[in-house]
Amino acid sequence: MEHEDYMRKALALAECGMGHVSPNPMVGAVIVRDGEIIASGYHKRYGDLHAERSAFAECDAKGIDCTGADMYVTLEPCCHHGKQPPCTEAVIEHGIRRVFVGSSDPNPLVAGKGTAILRDHGIEVTEGVLKDECDRLNEIFFKFITTGLPFVTLKYAMTLDGKIACYTGKSQWITGETARDHVHRERLHHAAIMVGVGTVLADDPMLTCRIENGRDPLRIICDTHLRTPLDSNIVRTSDKVPTLIVCGDADSVRIGEYEKCGCKVLSMPDKNGSTDLAALMAYLGKEKIDSVLIEGGGTLGWSALESGIVDKVMAYVAPKIFGGSTAKTPVGGQGVAVPDDAFMLENRRITELDGDILIEGRVKKCSRD
Amino acid sequence: MEHEDYMRKALALAECGMGHVSPNPMVGAVIVRDGEIIASGYHKRYGDLHAERSAFAECDAKGIDCTGADMYVTLEPCCHHGKQPPCTEAVIEHGIRRVFVGSSDPNPLVAGKGTAILRDHGIEVTEGVLKDECDRLNEIFFKFITTGLPFVTLKYAMTLDGKIACYTGKSQWITGETARDHVHRERLHHAAIMVGVGTVLADDPMLTCRIENGRDPLRIICDTHLRTPLDSNIVRTSDKVPTLIVCGDADSVRIGEYEKCGCKVLSMPDKNGSTDLAALMAYLGKEKIDSVLIEGGGTLGWSALESGIVDKVMAYVAPKIFGGSTAKTPVGGQGVAVPDDAFMLENRRITELDGDILIEGRVKKCSRD
Repeated sequence: MEHEDYMRKALALAECGMGHVSPNPMVGAVIVRDGEIIASGYHKRYGDLHAERSAFAECDAKGIDCTGADMYVTLEPCCHHGKQPPCTEAVIEHGIRRVFVGSSDPNPLVAGKGTAILRDHGIEVTEGVLKDECDRLNEIFFKFITTGLPFVTLKYAMTLDGKIACYTGKSQWITGETARDHVHRERLHHAAIMVGVGTVLADDPMLTCRIENGRDPLRIICDTHLRTPLDSNIVRTSDKVPTLIVCGDADSVRIGEYEKCGCKVLSMPDKNGSTDLAALMAYLGKEKIDSVLIEGGGTLGWSALESGIVDKVMAYVAPKIFGGSTAKTPVGGQGVAVPDDAFMLENRRITELDGDILIEGRVKKCSRD
Repeated sequence: MEHEDYMRKALALAECGMGHVSPNPMVGAVIVRDGEIIASGYHKRYGDLHAERSAFAECDAKGIDCTGADMYVTLEPCCHHGKQPPCTEAVIEHGIRRVFVGSSDPNPLVAGKGTAILRDHGIEVTEGVLKDECDRLNEIFFKFITTGLPFVTLKYAMTLDGKIACYTGKSQWITGETARDHVHRERLHHAAIMVGVGTVLADDPMLTCRIENGRDPLRIICDTHLRTPLDSNIVRTSDKVPTLIVCGDADSVRIGEYEKCGCKVLSMPDKNGSTDLAALMAYLGKEKIDSVLIEGGGTLGWSALESGIVDKVMAYVAPKIFGGSTAKTPVGGQGVAVPDDAFMLENRRITELDGDILIEGRVKKCSRD
């Protein structure tokens, strides 16, 4: 096997932590001797062993000597004392000869220190193995650790003529089962889901994650005038699934009704009549919410783009046509006036999902007046 | 080289005839001996030599003996007397030992007769080499020869949020240069381009083919009430580029004004206030127009889908977002009422065009009430 093959194994392990390690990164590690994987591990749950120590724990439990072996780890080993002692120490103690690293530590203040310590102890370090894949796996962590703000993904499903519903409002279903399963994976991947109250009124969704052993994300409703029905699916399940309703200046009695059901209600000054999304993201960051998946509708999508909070767009495109000059499109609001002002997507990726097509891209940050 | 590699060469040659052989098919042929291509040819222009005879002409001119050689030809050799004597005769006369065929003759009444004649003369025939690619190259010919109706492609360029213009109407440009060049190739590929008068009023386009040695398609404007401006780019160039304006019941003096400029005006009964597209296609088929590229806008796109004339959809998707709840989308009109009634696309293909994404599919034909 090649170095990249071992790193791919480590990546696959890292992904098993999805939904359970936030706001930590997902990390995987494999230990290799003479072309054979002798131990492996990953960061399973926030507060648990880091990937490197998880792999060493396997060695210790099975009495495997890893002196002189190679280690492949998706993220630069940490060198500071946090919930766990530094991983660099464990790597040195176990006599690892060579370390292959995927992503560097994203924090510019500490990046490179972990690998420097290893090198100082005579360990050969190779960086950047499958770097793009490793970086992408932790794009949420990378943004959160460097800015303190959640990574925001704008997600929608549309037809090939850009409709998110028929003119009648009916929208079940646009994409097929594989694409819809993929969305549930994204819900697992993000700490919170956010929708506008319009989506709650139109679709009465649950916004839970239907993946076995998954965990439900925090559900956030942007609802300036507190129009969310008390008998909606979201409010009715808010004693079981964490739910945050963000409103403007509201009556405390009315707020109390939602709180009695189990919702948390955040009252904050609105901005031009809608939720101040930049301020909301700052609040969520402080609450250790590292990521938000915006699931609709078009008005919220536009507000999010316009306020500059969106990092990534995920468009699920179904190979079908609804037509309809009044049918809704995924991004509404006012829109840009000229093509040159469009929000550009870069690092575009295309994935085929059993007939449907997922087009993803990072929103190009540029100065806008 | 493998059989498919030779067929791929023949396919590339066939494509060189694009825009010049209509309503004949594009056909290419290569002659191979001992793993070497000794001659090749393609159908260059309507009325000229067929591909097989073009290859034999090269042999004859260069004194190459092709007795015992193999021939790869993208379409089953013809066996009837048309503008040219049957190709099967030439294949037999030249002592070809084996023939590899891509597509079968699409006409169900004659399909298989060409290969049967070759086999009767002791020639070994293998059919279906790169069949899908060969069939796709001549999808226009296949429909036209079997139905007498033009093959209709609905083409549009949109943003990843389904907009064909900003809310201001500005639309230059949505896609990049590579995608726009690709559109000019499609104009060469189709015998006619069709737009609604709304597109003429909004964009004042030329609708010519800007490919070197290309040829301009017939320009068709669906214009029930004859609103096309006499000083529009299309009317002003109609003495050089064939132009057809399709109107309802119109004043003969007014019609005369367009005719004086060089336009042809077709007056036909409208259907619910718009051009009767099914009747128009029947007319165009009789005029030997084998293919129509619909280039806009959303109202015409919907009418075309609804009337059942569309064979293929080509959506050029740019990785950018305009937003705008009033910005136009590629297919307007009334639209379907429920997702299950959507127009489905099959045989989907995705092509990346230097950042933009082309998604193509054949419209699934189904009975609609």
